Amino acid sequence: MDSIFTKIIKGEIPCYKVAEDENHLAFLDIMPLKEAHVLVITKKQVDYIFDLEPSEIADLNKFAQRVAKAIKKTVDCIKVGVAVIGLEVPHVHIHLIPLHRIDDINFSKPKLKMDSETLKKMAQKISEKFV
Amino acid sequence: MDSIFTKIIKGEIPCYKVAEDENHLAFLDIMPLKEAHVLVITKKQVDYIFDLEPSEIADLNKFAQRVAKAIKKTVDCIKVGVAVIGLEVPHVHIHLIPLHRIDDINFSKPKLKMDSETLKKMAQKISEKFV
Repeated sequence: MDSIFTKIIKGEIPCYKVAEDENHLAFLDIMPLKEAHVLVITKKQVDYIFDLEPSEIADLNKFAQRVAKAIKKTVDCIKVGVAVIGLEVPHVHIHLIPLHRIDDINFSKPKLKMDSETLKKMAQKISEKFV
Repeated sequence: MDSIFTKIIKGEIPCYKVAEDENHLAFLDIMPLKEAHVLVITKKQVDYIFDLEPSEIADLNKFAQRVAKAIKKTVDCIKVGVAVIGLEVPHVHIHLIPLHRIDDINFSKPKLKMDSETLKKMAQKISEKFV
């Protein structure tokens, strides 16, 4: 069965796209912990990140690095943090989250509510910094 | 100045070692969020993970994958989660945390207190599963 992320890849569900290559896609989390909270996914639908082949893990993280650099150039933060949990959507995804404090990575906190126009502009800004 | 992790690499501070290769070291977090909470570090002292070279990011994550597989074989969990924050120790480190629920990655929670003998045995068990 297609995951929600596969549906996004297929264009059946829209997303605020930040970056893409042959095997990966990055888009804004619409339930963000912080502004510019991005999800980086593999186009291949695999549930658990550590079931990927080592070369796939390597490529995914090199792609995520490029996205993280674009985020850091776009929004004010000390660092871009990383989280992989994967208990909700059974499709590999890395959270990239701009950090000011340790508690910025805490999925128990209420998510931000951001309107469509704001998300669209943010995705555009990050994508312009992506190289 | 040597970070606390460089002091561990040099053997000036002890650790509960789980795995090692030429460029990486994995050991138990002594302030764990969960049993078998492991830190994976680069031997090279770099503050921010995304300042590593892409090939170094790739190698670090491939090493972390091998450690995560060993953790999963050692303790009961749904998945092994990943977190990179890096606001406290200025030396690249990946947290690998056995997950049962989303809130298992929440660094605001009180840390577990585990005695030396328990940590030593856990490190030994994980290291035996490391390939």
